[in-house]
Amino acid sequence: MRLRVDLIPRPPYGESAVVLIDVLRATTSIAILLELGAREVWVTPRVSTARQAARDGDLLLGEREGIPPEGFHYGTSPVELSKLDVKGRRIFYTSDNLPVALEKIAYRGRVYLAGFRNAATLVDNLVKDETDSVAVVCAGFRGAEALDDALAAGFIARSLRLRLGADLSLGDAARLAASLLDAYANPVDGLWASASGRFLNRLGYGDDLALASLIDAGQVLPVLDKVRKVEGVPLYRFVPRA
Amino acid sequence: MRLRVDLIPRPPYGESAVVLIDVLRATTSIAILLELGAREVWVTPRVSTARQAARDGDLLLGEREGIPPEGFHYGTSPVELSKLDVKGRRIFYTSDNLPVALEKIAYRGRVYLAGFRNAATLVDNLVKDETDSVAVVCAGFRGAEALDDALAAGFIARSLRLRLGADLSLGDAARLAASLLDAYANPVDGLWASASGRFLNRLGYGDDLALASLIDAGQVLPVLDKVRKVEGVPLYRFVPRA
Repeated sequence: MRLRVDLIPRPPYGESAVVLIDVLRATTSIAILLELGAREVWVTPRVSTARQAARDGDLLLGEREGIPPEGFHYGTSPVELSKLDVKGRRIFYTSDNLPVALEKIAYRGRVYLAGFRNAATLVDNLVKDETDSVAVVCAGFRGAEALDDALAAGFIARSLRLRLGADLSLGDAARLAASLLDAYANPVDGLWASASGRFLNRLGYGDDLALASLIDAGQVLPVLDKVRKVEGVPLYRFVPRA
Repeated sequence: MRLRVDLIPRPPYGESAVVLIDVLRATTSIAILLELGAREVWVTPRVSTARQAARDGDLLLGEREGIPPEGFHYGTSPVELSKLDVKGRRIFYTSDNLPVALEKIAYRGRVYLAGFRNAATLVDNLVKDETDSVAVVCAGFRGAEALDDALAAGFIARSLRLRLGADLSLGDAARLAASLLDAYANPVDGLWASASGRFLNRLGYGDDLALASLIDAGQVLPVLDKVRKVEGVPLYRFVPRA
């Protein structure tokens, strides 16, 4: 298997699978929602688009400056979301970062969302599928490399390396990301040092960092299965990988 | 001081100083040439441009697939260059990587070349100048992040941090690069793991990695002082920072 790691999205992507990482917090939160039995999670950048697309019984999740917008049910803190009963629900999830990355990736093959909690499930699926090439793409933070995403990418790189040994070929950015794990004995220390970790902590979401750094805490791998547009604004549907 | 690290060039740059890193091998070799007393080093991407611009007595340095092009005096191995008598000579140095990065940076302020050997001199100068913001830009390797350059950027970030303490503000990529030093007790191990290090080793230039990883081995900081064009192809002149 060939592994490519991008510390920020750098299209085009021709790999057999693309794994997108936004560990603080979107890919962590969406994995948790699907673990809890949500039927599907639609990701969209625009609050008004989410409102427009949702029907009765759907859940609207999003935050602006740490507060859910008007008419939204909850924010996007994984700690808060993990306490909800979302079984069978359709969810609309607004995010600044994730849709930008998804649009850049513009990929027609398999797109997964991953973080520390479902890295093992990701690796299982990549190996089971006999994937010949995979791109692990960090969403980054405000257009630049993010330490938290790079650490999660490094964790995935190292997990693949342990599983595949010399059958994995990896580039410099993958080695670089994997090396970060030597610097942070516990990944949560890296999340605390990251810009988005410090930002979330200032907003009172410090507990999200501990949750996002939990390794193999879930076994659900979100996979993109549909994209639609409402008045030109994309909505990306994620469901659990079977 | 604000420190920005780019693991590959990502213009624009508005910082007070830009530090370019291509540790294997251009920034290491050019620093050594100026340490040895070369009067000036002109960097250009094109072999024919170097030939055209050189006059009698000038030295032409370059490599294609590890071999100096016809009419060139030497290659660009820092180990080989460190044995030359270049005192007072004008040098034309062809490089694939460095001119691409210089063109992307397109910066009109101070541009330095740095690596492990002159990091301390760089820090001295940045502090002496009371620089308010600096961008450390890795040239990268074949358009992607390079482990060797990222390590050198991390070494500079850490050196600045040691000198300035809390007076240095640094972004995620700077933290990320600095963290790499915890993974490689000796930077040369990171150079061996890097794609360009492995490439050079295959060409028989393994000794260059040991030389490029020497810390504080030189006290000369190359600074860009002039750009000219010959038939549209740029030549960048570097001299020792006074």
